[in-house]
Amino acid sequence: MTKIAVLGNGSWGSVLGSMLADNGNDVVLYGNIDAVNEEINQHHTNSHYMKDWKLNENVPATSNLEEAITGADLLLFVLPTKAVRIVAKNVKPILDKLGTKPLLVTATKGIEPGSKKLISDILTEEIYPNDTDKIVAISGPSHAENVAQKDLTAITCASTNEENAKLVQKLFSNNYVRFYTNNDLIGVEVGGAVKNVIAIAAGILVGKGYGDDAKAALMTRGLAEITRLGVKYFGAQAQTFSGLSGIGDLIVTCTSVNSRNWRAGKQLGEGKHLDWIVEHMGQVVEGATTVKAVHELVQEKDIDMPISEAVYRVCYENADVDEEIKQMMGRSPKPEIRL
Amino acid sequence: MTKIAVLGNGSWGSVLGSMLADNGNDVVLYGNIDAVNEEINQHHTNSHYMKDWKLNENVPATSNLEEAITGADLLLFVLPTKAVRIVAKNVKPILDKLGTKPLLVTATKGIEPGSKKLISDILTEEIYPNDTDKIVAISGPSHAENVAQKDLTAITCASTNEENAKLVQKLFSNNYVRFYTNNDLIGVEVGGAVKNVIAIAAGILVGKGYGDDAKAALMTRGLAEITRLGVKYFGAQAQTFSGLSGIGDLIVTCTSVNSRNWRAGKQLGEGKHLDWIVEHMGQVVEGATTVKAVHELVQEKDIDMPISEAVYRVCYENADVDEEIKQMMGRSPKPEIRL
Repeated sequence: MTKIAVLGNGSWGSVLGSMLADNGNDVVLYGNIDAVNEEINQHHTNSHYMKDWKLNENVPATSNLEEAITGADLLLFVLPTKAVRIVAKNVKPILDKLGTKPLLVTATKGIEPGSKKLISDILTEEIYPNDTDKIVAISGPSHAENVAQKDLTAITCASTNEENAKLVQKLFSNNYVRFYTNNDLIGVEVGGAVKNVIAIAAGILVGKGYGDDAKAALMTRGLAEITRLGVKYFGAQAQTFSGLSGIGDLIVTCTSVNSRNWRAGKQLGEGKHLDWIVEHMGQVVEGATTVKAVHELVQEKDIDMPISEAVYRVCYENADVDEEIKQMMGRSPKPEIRL
Repeated sequence: MTKIAVLGNGSWGSVLGSMLADNGNDVVLYGNIDAVNEEINQHHTNSHYMKDWKLNENVPATSNLEEAITGADLLLFVLPTKAVRIVAKNVKPILDKLGTKPLLVTATKGIEPGSKKLISDILTEEIYPNDTDKIVAISGPSHAENVAQKDLTAITCASTNEENAKLVQKLFSNNYVRFYTNNDLIGVEVGGAVKNVIAIAAGILVGKGYGDDAKAALMTRGLAEITRLGVKYFGAQAQTFSGLSGIGDLIVTCTSVNSRNWRAGKQLGEGKHLDWIVEHMGQVVEGATTVKAVHELVQEKDIDMPISEAVYRVCYENADVDEEIKQMMGRSPKPEIRL
């Protein structure tokens, strides 16, 4: 029996942890909010994040990191991007003391503000300085709510080490979630992180009243610029972006009214100001931060990302949406495929 | 002024013809239904195909093919797949008599039943036996209704001859439709033709009550198998399928309730039989024919297309949808990228 410590007990962490226990693994959840841990231990529910849903009863929750990771063969990171480095710094001395080297799996999608590092970079730097092979990223079109209801789902698990990707594929797969291995760790991470910028743009178009053609064009050309960023800045493989962590995740994020980034974009399109939207959303609009990080990357490396740049100007420079669309449609004629 | 003959005066032919006239070209529409031509000439409407819409008043319609193509620099084919070879056979002797070699542009998406040929193959065989460079295909997420309303739209124009693709890009582009050139003529045609099979599958999932994750996974894995078919059977370039004629068109077809193929799939998922659906649809379900052509290709070349094959079995072998889904989720574990 494989012992898995899930670090993060929000909606996705709880659902993944419960699914992994259903799959026959020995699972423990780690989180730093005592009330959440107590509710999970006493009632097997996590009602703040998941309504009308029960976890597998064999999954305990703890706020004691050492207790959680002692004996673990695998640590699954499902934390907000900003918490990953902090927790990783705490994990390192415990592993050193225990003398164990568990596999690290990340389900967190993001780019660290400032350093512009991906999650696998943070984990490598903080925990396994010379061993990227011990990292696996899982990413794809997967809402916690859908997986909790056992909706059919397909997810990519990526690693520079094929055996480790296959191990995750085996441990995580069941009859409603299917995992596909991929060797492009970086490409898989970039897709999941940058898609939120395009989701904001998709919301803006709907807010302005544009139709299906415009949305499909935006998603396709959005994918083209995410691919360009991934290949030119991060060294990713272009074909990865045609997969589950690229276009798959982009489709879900740009077509679901449940996406906060898409909803924020729609309100921008309707003429609201970003500050007002963030204040009234009641939850973090992750894409609004990613827009800034992408803008910095574009400036630094001169990568052609017209949609992301337009979103940046609308969010942070009070640019007029109609004028931005006019400019974009009036750009010089281009070939479809170019990096 | 460029003279353009649009062969086919259904919804997409009428809208493209009118748009090309708006763009400053000299346009004539050819169609074989006299009542439609008369209505276009007298009232500048085509009410059977397009409600509440008027064509550019300078676009005449005729059922005289020789009159239509005399003096034309460009022939735009917007006919049903089954009519392309018939009309092409009629065009050839007229061009020989006139001694002209106009550029041939196809907006028709399909695979010819029996021969399994793409539209560009038919046009080459029938009109320019040794000159594929004179063919340009246009394809992408573009509903006639949306373009008629000047919704933002992006379309690929593909040719083995870059100059000819650029010429089409220049003639067709305006401030609401943006054309991108592509050198992979075959890849662009395959995407547009085979997407309808995946649209039927997407409809089936919705008919069975599955959610957003399942739909995004289906579209992404559907794209993977269209790409496999395109590369292995037709010699297309893999990256073309990440573009407007691939994933772009797939997104529109799988997410719009206006798609007949998607609606047919939904009824299959709800337990209706294909014969009943086809009888009650009142219009051609093109995908139902493409499913057969793709099945023949799969058998012939042993290409792995699990979704298309499941759709074939549901459509033509009375297979049970739940059993097909169970089989598909239980396939051996796979890497994400493989041809």
